[in-house]
Amino acid sequence: MDAEIIAVGSELLTPFRQDTNSLYLTGKLNSLGIEVRFKTVVGDDRERLAATLRAALGRSQLVILTGGLGPTEDDLSREVAAEVLERPLLEVEEIRRRIEERLARLGRTMSANNLRQAMVPEGAEWLTNDRGTAPGLWMEQQRTIVILLPGPPGELEAMFEATCLPRLEPRSGGWRLRTRVYKVVGLPESEVDHRIAPLYKPYTNPATTILSALGTIEVHLRAHGSSDQQAVALLSELGDKIEFALGDHVFSSRGETLEEVVGMYLVMKQKTVAVAESCTGGLVAERLTRVPGSSGFFLGGVVCYSNEVKTRFVGVPAEMIATHGAVSTPVAQALAEGIRRRAGASLGLGITGIAGPSGGTAEKPVGLVFIALADDRSTEVRQFRFPGERERVRMWSSVAALEMTRRRVRD
Amino acid sequence: MDAEIIAVGSELLTPFRQDTNSLYLTGKLNSLGIEVRFKTVVGDDRERLAATLRAALGRSQLVILTGGLGPTEDDLSREVAAEVLERPLLEVEEIRRRIEERLARLGRTMSANNLRQAMVPEGAEWLTNDRGTAPGLWMEQQRTIVILLPGPPGELEAMFEATCLPRLEPRSGGWRLRTRVYKVVGLPESEVDHRIAPLYKPYTNPATTILSALGTIEVHLRAHGSSDQQAVALLSELGDKIEFALGDHVFSSRGETLEEVVGMYLVMKQKTVAVAESCTGGLVAERLTRVPGSSGFFLGGVVCYSNEVKTRFVGVPAEMIATHGAVSTPVAQALAEGIRRRAGASLGLGITGIAGPSGGTAEKPVGLVFIALADDRSTEVRQFRFPGERERVRMWSSVAALEMTRRRVRD
Repeated sequence: MDAEIIAVGSELLTPFRQDTNSLYLTGKLNSLGIEVRFKTVVGDDRERLAATLRAALGRSQLVILTGGLGPTEDDLSREVAAEVLERPLLEVEEIRRRIEERLARLGRTMSANNLRQAMVPEGAEWLTNDRGTAPGLWMEQQRTIVILLPGPPGELEAMFEATCLPRLEPRSGGWRLRTRVYKVVGLPESEVDHRIAPLYKPYTNPATTILSALGTIEVHLRAHGSSDQQAVALLSELGDKIEFALGDHVFSSRGETLEEVVGMYLVMKQKTVAVAESCTGGLVAERLTRVPGSSGFFLGGVVCYSNEVKTRFVGVPAEMIATHGAVSTPVAQALAEGIRRRAGASLGLGITGIAGPSGGTAEKPVGLVFIALADDRSTEVRQFRFPGERERVRMWSSVAALEMTRRRVRD
Repeated sequence: MDAEIIAVGSELLTPFRQDTNSLYLTGKLNSLGIEVRFKTVVGDDRERLAATLRAALGRSQLVILTGGLGPTEDDLSREVAAEVLERPLLEVEEIRRRIEERLARLGRTMSANNLRQAMVPEGAEWLTNDRGTAPGLWMEQQRTIVILLPGPPGELEAMFEATCLPRLEPRSGGWRLRTRVYKVVGLPESEVDHRIAPLYKPYTNPATTILSALGTIEVHLRAHGSSDQQAVALLSELGDKIEFALGDHVFSSRGETLEEVVGMYLVMKQKTVAVAESCTGGLVAERLTRVPGSSGFFLGGVVCYSNEVKTRFVGVPAEMIATHGAVSTPVAQALAEGIRRRAGASLGLGITGIAGPSGGTAEKPVGLVFIALADDRSTEVRQFRFPGERERVRMWSSVAALEMTRRRVRD
């Protein structure tokens, strides 16, 4: 079964808004083995929407419209679908009552516009909306299924999950699509591809995609099978080879983020970490504390932007900064050891560098970053030279610091 | 002139990737007064792409294809465009030479696949690619312009800017579209709409869109004019009324972020800030240090996740934490005053709260956050109850802290 998604709404044709519902829907359809072949965005325009829907009916077995079900005159999906499928719109008493009740609870009364949401094309099933007033619609015409869903993601997702997935599953031909994502750190995208291309090239199923995402590389595998087990077996056959080829650069195969993996290892080994960061400005602490339960492994940190704060809060000697500069191996080491001791943590991270755009010199250019990791036995200091602009230098620095921590704690 | 954009590539039909090039292109086309009426995503499939292009030629005066110009067999845009426009593909010696030179610089030789990139449909102009091997294409057929651009955003944007904008400008009919964005903090979206709907409803030009974005609300105005001046005058006519109605909740009308505005005020008033944050985990420091030049106003901060760190680094009395709890008015106040004094800053921010998912109680539920702002005269403490999950509580807390700082420094 081939699907296509039509997102309706003029705001989706501005530079400011993306259709993101289609990503959610694609993931869910894929899980049933249904591939999405086309995605279209069209404005709140009767003729253009009708033409788009007609084209879709001619080529896809499943057509999903999102948006355009609201109570205003701009909302045309219901009327246009009725027109294209040549079915009269009939008022459904039960929907009308539900909308009246919902509005009454909010202290409002029914308007003529709200009433439009109670109209349903003849022969259509309507889909309950537990989070809003607009019901969805399910229609079948010859061998094509047409589904209309509301635009707000919360309403759309709840409705699709509860009412569409169970109806689609028996129709999906029994195919299943399963995915696996390997997250990789410490290798550039080209090197990842170089290592694994000979492995995945012979396979069309699973299909392999390599993406770069915020300083890490993701290898996505998608396998079709006649059952979940078969799809998973296909994933494992190729996936195990890929994981072996990438070795310990793979930090996750179950969706965990790098900070979640670091946190997991710290909890497992009953260790804690504290951070003294300059150029990353709190980003490493912020990433570690994104993890629910981070109070179990993260004690705290100092964002030491000024030299005085480095000295006063972390104990970096002022003479050391004067002699070597704030961006130097000794200062990174002193930050790591100082924050570890003062916070009473098992591990201390120290980060100092030049994020730019200004502050760089010929000797110490923008992108130069020193990262130190101290434990009770030793301190490792690494020097990096990250390319790109401020935000990228900060992001790469945070990845490198987390990766140094992952390797230390794991071993 | 109506435009449509066709993004080509099977990876754009997975749950993992979005077509983002169309947002860039829409912004640029809008600036010439050209509206985008359709956006389609289609996979690397000869028939589907051909059908999509044929439909586009029948309804739009400007059709832009993005992607599918690479050297692999999956890359079909060039061949399909030649076929649909019924033009033979001819090899262009100059492109061939340029690709050979480029590959030679990288130490590689020309493959048969690379050679495909030197093929151009008869009568097409080719567009130089300074950042990759794939040239773009510009074709005109009857009254329709068809442009093929490479998929990688860096290549696409440089090429469009250098070669397409100058060619499109004289064809755009002299209309200009100008936009203005008011960023609003401290009012919910519904209240913003309630205040300004009576102002913008009478206008179709400018068109008004209200978006919520990371704890702030954005009001986007788009005005068409026969000249830049006329479009800007239309923006100002409505914009000034909107700005007046929203008062000092508007913190930006030129694109600045909230942290940039806070930084600007601090520099103007020659003040500095330091931050002691618990539940936000470094997010406020990280946001302030995103601003280039933040070392001019941000001294540093402490991420005091554990109670010991609150006491040792910021001087919050352990008895105070024992008596009132870490999430309390006195502790927020002690954090703000302590970090201000110890860092030697003009202003100190203290943030303590329960981000969740665990840690909440009936008395102190998830989402309860205290934010304190201290200067040399007094300390203001505010209590918030933010809805939603961990990430949202942290994000809303950072917005509230920055907004308290903005108001204090401005006044």
